[in-house]
Amino acid sequence: MTALTSGLHGVLPGTRVLTDPEAVAAYAHDEAEGAPYTLPAAVVLPTSTAEVAALVAHCAAEGVPVVARGAGTGLSGGANAVAGSVVVSFEAMTGVVAIDRAERLARVRPGTVNDDLRAACAEQGLWYPPDPASSPWSTIGGNVATNAGGPCCVKYGVTRDYVLGMEVVTGLGEVVRLGRRTAKGVAGYDLAGLMVGSEGTLGLITEITVRLRTPPEPARTVVGCFDDLPAAGRAVAAVVGSGAQPSALELVDRFCLRAVDEWKRMGLSAEGDVLLLARCDTPGGAGEEEAAAIRAAFDAAGATWSERSTDQAEADALFAARRLVYPALVRLGAVLTEDVCVPRTEVTEVLARIERIAERHDVRIACLAHAGDGNLHPMVVVPPGDEGARTRGARALEQVVDLAVDTGGTVTGEHGVGLLKMRGLARELSPAVMAMHRAVKTALDPAGILNPGKVFPTE
Amino acid sequence: MTALTSGLHGVLPGTRVLTDPEAVAAYAHDEAEGAPYTLPAAVVLPTSTAEVAALVAHCAAEGVPVVARGAGTGLSGGANAVAGSVVVSFEAMTGVVAIDRAERLARVRPGTVNDDLRAACAEQGLWYPPDPASSPWSTIGGNVATNAGGPCCVKYGVTRDYVLGMEVVTGLGEVVRLGRRTAKGVAGYDLAGLMVGSEGTLGLITEITVRLRTPPEPARTVVGCFDDLPAAGRAVAAVVGSGAQPSALELVDRFCLRAVDEWKRMGLSAEGDVLLLARCDTPGGAGEEEAAAIRAAFDAAGATWSERSTDQAEADALFAARRLVYPALVRLGAVLTEDVCVPRTEVTEVLARIERIAERHDVRIACLAHAGDGNLHPMVVVPPGDEGARTRGARALEQVVDLAVDTGGTVTGEHGVGLLKMRGLARELSPAVMAMHRAVKTALDPAGILNPGKVFPTE
Repeated sequence: MTALTSGLHGVLPGTRVLTDPEAVAAYAHDEAEGAPYTLPAAVVLPTSTAEVAALVAHCAAEGVPVVARGAGTGLSGGANAVAGSVVVSFEAMTGVVAIDRAERLARVRPGTVNDDLRAACAEQGLWYPPDPASSPWSTIGGNVATNAGGPCCVKYGVTRDYVLGMEVVTGLGEVVRLGRRTAKGVAGYDLAGLMVGSEGTLGLITEITVRLRTPPEPARTVVGCFDDLPAAGRAVAAVVGSGAQPSALELVDRFCLRAVDEWKRMGLSAEGDVLLLARCDTPGGAGEEEAAAIRAAFDAAGATWSERSTDQAEADALFAARRLVYPALVRLGAVLTEDVCVPRTEVTEVLARIERIAERHDVRIACLAHAGDGNLHPMVVVPPGDEGARTRGARALEQVVDLAVDTGGTVTGEHGVGLLKMRGLARELSPAVMAMHRAVKTALDPAGILNPGKVFPTE
Repeated sequence: MTALTSGLHGVLPGTRVLTDPEAVAAYAHDEAEGAPYTLPAAVVLPTSTAEVAALVAHCAAEGVPVVARGAGTGLSGGANAVAGSVVVSFEAMTGVVAIDRAERLARVRPGTVNDDLRAACAEQGLWYPPDPASSPWSTIGGNVATNAGGPCCVKYGVTRDYVLGMEVVTGLGEVVRLGRRTAKGVAGYDLAGLMVGSEGTLGLITEITVRLRTPPEPARTVVGCFDDLPAAGRAVAAVVGSGAQPSALELVDRFCLRAVDEWKRMGLSAEGDVLLLARCDTPGGAGEEEAAAIRAAFDAAGATWSERSTDQAEADALFAARRLVYPALVRLGAVLTEDVCVPRTEVTEVLARIERIAERHDVRIACLAHAGDGNLHPMVVVPPGDEGARTRGARALEQVVDLAVDTGGTVTGEHGVGLLKMRGLARELSPAVMAMHRAVKTALDPAGILNPGKVFPTE
C-alpha cells in the first residue's frame, strides 16, 4: 500500500478506494477520441460532502492531483486522469435532495443522472430544461462542470441559466455554499456562475440548486429536407430572422442519417440529404402561427419537402433518431467530434466551407448541429486501423476550429475545453485573458491540484 | 497642479480632467442615503477605451484608487468617491455602436442610458428587457456593474442574462475582450459573468455586447387591492403557485401610494391599502387565460377589488405611478432604502414581520416590491432634521436585512453591496466565501486600486 493509498483509507472505507489497475482503468478517461490519459493512482467513490472535503484536503497537503468525474460522457478529455492523480467519481453521491414546488427549485447531488432529475421534476409537475444528448447517462455535476447545452437551449438556455447555487469543496478542502436560492441576488461576486463550466479546475461540486420551470405545452414539430448543407443553413437563418422562437432547431446531415439507418433501419436518409427538425411549444394559436412561419422559412430556403408533423409518434421518432446519431457513428469507427459555435447568420457560409475543408483533406465530415444556436458538431469517423484517415480528419477539424474563431465564433459551444480544445482556446482568447484565467485558478486552487493541465496550461 | 493631476493631463485633455472642488463634488457620491464619501482628487471623462486604459495604468503605477461611475443613480454607495481617488465618469462614452438585427445583439458603450438603448433597439424591432426603475437615467455600464433588475425580470431575467460579452480595462490597465457574441459558448471561465455585478472592483467596462429579444406582445394588466401586506403576500404566493408567468408582479403599499398622490394627485391611495400590479404578455388565448388565473389568485387571496384592465392608458398610468414612488418619497425626506430578496413563498411572512419591526422601532416602513421575485424594497422616510427617526429607521432596516438572511434570502436583490450592504454581506457569506472574494479580487486587481473598500473589506 502506497502512502497515498493509506492516506485515502484514512478518509474513506477501503471498498471505496480503488487501486487495482483493471478497476481504475474504467475511470481513466471520458469519451473524447484521441485525448491523452494515464491510469490514475486511485479512484475514490465518496458518499458525502465531508468525505470529499477530507480527501481533497489530504490531496492538497500531499500535492496530489484531483480529477472530478461524473458519468465520463464528456467529449473533450476534461475528466481524463493525469499522472499520479486521484479520480473522484461522484457515482455514489446521487439523488434529488429536495424539490420545492412553490419556489420551483431542486437541490440535487452531483452524481444524479440528468434524466433522473428530469423524471423527478416531472412527477411534481415541473421541468428541468437542459437536455444534452447524453441525458440518459450524464450527471448533473458533469453538466454543471461543462455548462452542458442541448437541443432545447435555443429557447430555454443552457445549464448555467438554471444553476442558482451550489455547495463546493475548494482546492483547500473547505466546504462553501455559493450562489443563492432566491430568484434574484447580487450579494458579492457570481462565484457560483464562475464554477459553472470550470471543468473541475476551481472546485468540486457536491450539491447543486437548480431553477425549474413549468413544463412547456406539447410541441409542434416541423420537418424540412434539403439538398445540401447551404440550403439548410439558409433555412436556419430565415427561421432566426423571422423572430420565431423554436424550442429546438436541429440539423442532421446525410452521413448521420445513413449511420442511424444502417443501425436502426429507420429509412431516414430516403427523406433527403439534410434534415432540419424544429419544435415549437408556444401555446395556442400563436404556436400554430409560429410553426407555420418555420415551415414557410424552410420552403422559402428551398426545402425539397417539408411537413408540419401531426403524428406525435413520428415526431418523437425523429428526435429520438437525432439522439442516436452519435452512438450510430461510434459503431462505424472512432469519432473525432467538434463543437464549434458560430454566429447564427454565418451557419450557411460555415457549413459550405466545412464541405470544402472535407474535400481538401479527403475525409467525410458528418454534420450534426443545434443549428438555431449556430452550434455545430462536425464529426469525422475514422475506420478501425486507418491512421491516415485519423491524421487527415484531425487536421480537417483543426481547420474547422480556426474557421469558427475567424468567423467570430467560439471553439466550444457546449462540450468544454478539456484537453482537446486547449490549442483552440489559446487561439480564441488573448494572452491577457489567458493570464486572467491563470490568476483566477491560482487564487481559488493555490495548491494547483484541481484537474491540472486541463483547459489552459498553468505555466 | 499635483503630480496626480499632471499625470492625468498626460492622458486626457485638461478639459476632461476636473479637479475644482465644486466640479468634483457633483461626482462624489451616488443616491445612497447615508453612505460615506469624500471628494475625489479628480474626476476624469474619457472618450475612448484607450484613454481608460492609459489612465488606469497611470493610477495603478501611482497606487491611486479608481472609482467607476455611470449616472450615479446607485442606491448602495458603490460609486462613492474614496480618499485620494480618481472618479472615472463614463458620461462621454455613450452610444450604441451597432445593432445586429439578424443575430439579435447590440454593442453599446457603457455611458449609454438604458432607455436610449431600449429606444434604439425598438427602432430595429428588437427589445432589451432589463428595466430598472432608473432606466430614464441609469447607464448600461452601471446596470452591468450592479447586475440591475427591474419589474420585467420576473419573466425575462436580470441584466446578467443579457450580457454576452464585454470589453474591459483590467486593474493593470490592459484591454481585454471577455465573453462572446455567439448564442452559446464555454471557452474558458465565465469571466464576463464574473464582471457582471462586480461593482467596479474587478475591471472597468468599456463596451458591452447584449442579447436582444423579439418585443413581447402588448401586455394585459391585472390590478388587485388588498387591506394589508400579508393578504397581498398571499396573492403573490398564489400567482407563483398557479404556474402563471406574469411579465411583472409589483407590490406598492399605502405609504408609497400616498406619497405619489400627494405629489401627482392620482388618487391611487383611494383604491386600497396595498396594490398589486401584474402584467402578462403571453400571446393569444393562453395570455387571456393567464390574466384570468392571476385575477382569480388575487381574489382568492382576499382582494378587496380586482380588475383586468382593458384601458391601456390606465394600465400605463399605474405602472408609471409605480416608477414615481421613489422620487415621490424623496420629496418627503431622506429615504433609507432596502433591497432584500427572499424566497417567493416567504413574502407573506416577511411582509408581516416587517410591519412588526416598524412598530417596534416606531417608524413607518414603506414597501415597494418586485413581489413575483421576492425582491422587497422596504424604505424609511426620514423627515428633514429628525436624527432620531434616522437612527430608528436604520436600526429597523438592519433587522430587515437580518430577517432576509434568516429566511434563506439575500441582503441585496438588485442594488448591489456598495458600502451600505457590507455588514449584511459578511452576515450572508461564510468567512471561507469572503476569503474566495478577496483571492479573486487580488488575482484580477493586484494593485488593489479598483473601487477599494467597497463590497467587502480587502483585509
